[in-house]
Amino acid sequence: MPLTPEQRDEIAHLRSEAVPTRRATVAALEDILYEAFPVLDHGFVRVIDYMGDDSAVVQAARVSYGRGTRKVSEDAGLIRYLMRHWHSTPFEMCEIKYHVKLPIFVARQWIRHRTANVNEYSARYSILDKEFYVPAPEHLSAQSTVNRQGRGEVLQGGEAARVMDLLREDSERAYRGYAEMLNQDEDGAPLDPSRSGLARELARMNLSLNYYTQWYWKVDLHNLMHFLRLRADSHAQYEIRAYADIMIDILERWVPLTADAFREYRLGGANLSATGLAIVRRMLAGETVAQADSGLSKREWRELMEQLGRSPEL
Amino acid sequence: MPLTPEQRDEIAHLRSEAVPTRRATVAALEDILYEAFPVLDHGFVRVIDYMGDDSAVVQAARVSYGRGTRKVSEDAGLIRYLMRHWHSTPFEMCEIKYHVKLPIFVARQWIRHRTANVNEYSARYSILDKEFYVPAPEHLSAQSTVNRQGRGEVLQGGEAARVMDLLREDSERAYRGYAEMLNQDEDGAPLDPSRSGLARELARMNLSLNYYTQWYWKVDLHNLMHFLRLRADSHAQYEIRAYADIMIDILERWVPLTADAFREYRLGGANLSATGLAIVRRMLAGETVAQADSGLSKREWRELMEQLGRSPEL
Amino acid sequence: MPLTPEQRDEIAHLRSEAVPTRRATVAALEDILYEAFPVLDHGFVRVIDYMGDDSAVVQAARVSYGRGTRKVSEDAGLIRYLMRHWHSTPFEMCEIKYHVKLPIFVARQWIRHRTANVNEYSARYSILDKEFYVPAPEHLSAQSTVNRQGRGEVLQGGEAARVMDLLREDSERAYRGYAEMLNQDEDGAPLDPSRSGLARELARMNLSLNYYTQWYWKVDLHNLMHFLRLRADSHAQYEIRAYADIMIDILERWVPLTADAFREYRLGGANLSATGLAIVRRMLAGETVAQADSGLSKREWRELMEQLGRSPEL
Amino acid sequence: MPLTPEQRDEIAHLRSEAVPTRRATVAALEDILYEAFPVLDHGFVRVIDYMGDDSAVVQAARVSYGRGTRKVSEDAGLIRYLMRHWHSTPFEMCEIKYHVKLPIFVARQWIRHRTANVNEYSARYSILDKEFYVPAPEHLSAQSTVNRQGRGEVLQGGEAARVMDLLREDSERAYRGYAEMLNQDEDGAPLDPSRSGLARELARMNLSLNYYTQWYWKVDLHNLMHFLRLRADSHAQYEIRAYADIMIDILERWVPLTADAFREYRLGGANLSATGLAIVRRMLAGETVAQADSGLSKREWRELMEQLGRSPEL
Repeated sequence: MPLTPEQRDEIAHLRSEAVPTRRATVAALEDILYEAFPVLDHGFVRVIDYMGDDSAVVQAARVSYGRGTRKVSEDAGLIRYLMRHWHSTPFEMCEIKYHVKLPIFVARQWIRHRTANVNEYSARYSILDKEFYVPAPEHLSAQSTVNRQGRGEVLQGGEAARVMDLLREDSERAYRGYAEMLNQDEDGAPLDPSRSGLARELARMNLSLNYYTQWYWKVDLHNLMHFLRLRADSHAQYEIRAYADIMIDILERWVPLTADAFREYRLGGANLSATGLAIVRRMLAGETVAQADSGLSKREWRELMEQLGRSPEL
Repeated sequence: MPLTPEQRDEIAHLRSEAVPTRRATVAALEDILYEAFPVLDHGFVRVIDYMGDDSAVVQAARVSYGRGTRKVSEDAGLIRYLMRHWHSTPFEMCEIKYHVKLPIFVARQWIRHRTANVNEYSARYSILDKEFYVPAPEHLSAQSTVNRQGRGEVLQGGEAARVMDLLREDSERAYRGYAEMLNQDEDGAPLDPSRSGLARELARMNLSLNYYTQWYWKVDLHNLMHFLRLRADSHAQYEIRAYADIMIDILERWVPLTADAFREYRLGGANLSATGLAIVRRMLAGETVAQADSGLSKREWRELMEQLGRSPEL
Repeated sequence: MPLTPEQRDEIAHLRSEAVPTRRATVAALEDILYEAFPVLDHGFVRVIDYMGDDSAVVQAARVSYGRGTRKVSEDAGLIRYLMRHWHSTPFEMCEIKYHVKLPIFVARQWIRHRTANVNEYSARYSILDKEFYVPAPEHLSAQSTVNRQGRGEVLQGGEAARVMDLLREDSERAYRGYAEMLNQDEDGAPLDPSRSGLARELARMNLSLNYYTQWYWKVDLHNLMHFLRLRADSHAQYEIRAYADIMIDILERWVPLTADAFREYRLGGANLSATGLAIVRRMLAGETVAQADSGLSKREWRELMEQLGRSPEL
Repeated sequence: MPLTPEQRDEIAHLRSEAVPTRRATVAALEDILYEAFPVLDHGFVRVIDYMGDDSAVVQAARVSYGRGTRKVSEDAGLIRYLMRHWHSTPFEMCEIKYHVKLPIFVARQWIRHRTANVNEYSARYSILDKEFYVPAPEHLSAQSTVNRQGRGEVLQGGEAARVMDLLREDSERAYRGYAEMLNQDEDGAPLDPSRSGLARELARMNLSLNYYTQWYWKVDLHNLMHFLRLRADSHAQYEIRAYADIMIDILERWVPLTADAFREYRLGGANLSATGLAIVRRMLAGETVAQADSGLSKREWRELMEQLGRSPEL
């Protein structure tokens, strides 16, 4: 259970109040504001604040068009056009702020996206809770044998049980060492009054990468979609994808037209290379093309055939 | 008068409506939302949207402190502390979006601040209005004789009149050339139906740098203050300072505690060098220090004495 | 002729000296270091410095792979892989610095790319030369009638001549006004000793957007390619494309493997939308698809058929 | 010992070769290029590449000044001027690339500096070595009792020994769990051929934050100095300061004039608040000022008196 009773109270309090604003407001997002959406075993995503909506994207794009603009394009069409032609600045005019609780190894991937603002819980200053991630059995996968950076089959039987035990035991032990070095019990009282306790900024290094941290993360809509495209991708690690998937659901509440265009042009679809495009043209002209005379390596050929929904042998 | 009747109507309409929100809301900023504050002869600044308030800064800072934080510091003190110690990330948690109308030469300085989002009116796509900046007589200054990058005395008499005439005439003439190349009259009708009209993206190059452009500019509170510190500075060109000054007034409506700390630690105050600090210490200890034995160059000495409110001769 | 005799001498001097370095060095780029490549009528691009080469990209990518990496992929294949899968960080490990002379309206488009470092000639501090851009006759195009943001046919006869005259005359006149307001002749002597001369930071506003400025522009390889993809595109304005085209030639000297992959995956090729990809799959399966039952708007359909090299009617 | 024999050989090889270049070159930095400077118990910093030198800063600043610039200011004076007046863009024209080996908890602080380029060793793709940080006895400090985010006295006797043992044992145990879950021995052979081995991207979560990672980190000179100012500060955690200190030594080899100005205006010196400056002026005028009538809080007063080298009681 990721929330403390104090957090639950605070959320209930924040959700109970509303004041009038002249700003762009999105009812479907207001509905879930401050709510914690659970992710993994102890994590969550909450929307804390937002700025703008689909209309703000359109309005920003139209600053550029000023006097004499034809009104032909309605909003959805314009948003699709902007997305298709990589006009990113109008999407930068919207902003969203999340409160996220996530394992440290996920935070380490996430932070690589530099075009966002972050305030993270400080383990130099405060003490981390005893909360660590252990994968659900269906996510406990073997190393992939074909992809060095991927997962294969789900572990079974004794091996699965042993891994689960190891993760739990080692995590528990790491926290015992942490608490002992800090010389603090769960209520913050000294375990041994004759000891000083190691500095928090040092003791934290005993914790493992599956311990949970939390942060505020604020990003504009363009950079959010860039993050989501990479992290909701099938090549992304499952644990960060779990966050991205929920954030895409939230995106649909916030900016439904933009979310549609995002699915059409970023999540779906395909980037064809120059050679790949030439092959498609030849095939459409009725030619039979084989990998050997395609100009593509075997790997590139396999990837292209997958995109085209065809068997690689053809 | 910078606003068209359509813009006035739109502003009135936007200001007339309010809907409930659960988000952080600032009444003093809502009061002026969408309003155009005039700057220079045809420019303006309008706040279009915002996210967060002083409490959002505090809240973000406290994410870091979590369990066990002492409640000693109240908000103002914490905000001062963050500003004094250059903790910038909590200030990045607030965001503001402006609509600005400004001369192109001012826009060229402004855009050098890269950590913001911009959508500018496109003169490739649309036609610029005939609006250009001419300084008020009290801002028509001679080149400084002591500072290559500054202004000296205000021009007087015949020279002032001649400069004013030149600016007006040349600007008028530039627009006539622009319109003739476009082959358009004021209503967008062709001046000469037998002509095609030069592409807008080319014709615009005939306009001078005092023509007005406009844009949406969105920035977080930290980067806004960085911008304001540099552009409200006495070394900044008057024309951009005029915008910065109004934006500081707006800052005080939006985040009054942060604005106070900003005045205390950024706009006011002084950065002393290591040598400068050593001199102050010697002086406080009763020693008489002269430039010659100060370790500072004459220029550095003069700047230091100015900061300390002392005559350079001492 | 864009270079002053002093600049020519300095370039010759810089090119005449070489010292030993242990750094990654690219002979083909050293060959042209400091040389000015002419662009438009008075502009140029010069490479002033660079860091890294194709191997530096590979080396950075392999930091990630460390112990146990299979050596199967040779450099070209790895670079193609990185490009195909949008792994941008290894390309960020190379850097290049240019000296560019360009019309102000081009500089205004260029500066929108924020992820670069810039030092521009200051017209607050110094006086701009009398150099302005006038398009060659073959680039003097009419406004496009189908695309608000594009060019149509090349202007002919009297209209072309008139536009050329207007651009030249108005530019000349703008400079006369500039010099008179500055109260300086070509050698920097006062035109009229009884006058003060307007501050440079004000006088410059009389110049038009086709006047040349210059800057140092430094960027990493990833962001350079992003810039080149957008600015070498057929939708970019010709005048900035002229710079991008030369910079792509230089790219091939610097990082030939990366430049190949860039052509294959960014300049060439196509981004298909989810709907577009489904259409291609149906067509490859032998189905005849028409716009009406495609799920695409007419514009989207036309764009897709163009990418596939097919007539839109089919 | 942080380097493998293969790394030593590679470094020796890289250092043995030099080729001619026309680029700006710094002999004192070439001398140590590729060399590993040890930091902490297993870490290091190596310079892998660089671009520019002190002259490149000056040259970039002078782009702005062009024709008519007085040659009065020699390089050191100009660099001091740029630093004093926060003209950051000329410093952005130099770039440096490091290879750094560092504990994960240090990497987590370091990565918060977003204006840099990073390629990190991937524990999704490869297996981390068994190398973890244990503080030297003199850095094993108690939690500060006056500063929640700091260290107090060095731990002594039994408590120190116990902490050291715990850190070592828990780190060893974490690696045993990691290797068992991976089902790999030290040579990469399966421990138990009947098992699959957990995916690397999951197994890594069992390691603790004192395990070493490594990365390439590339940054421009301006942002490097911003990083060093914050991380060489006495409030920074010792473990990251150890890296910053060595990087400042390297800075002095690379750009000695800039390094001097950096010490003068950033590392040394003081930022006085508006109120603090007013107090200094009063004191210099002979007035005795006490905290009570200073307008400063007790904490602010204490900080100011420290900067001025005076006892807070006065």
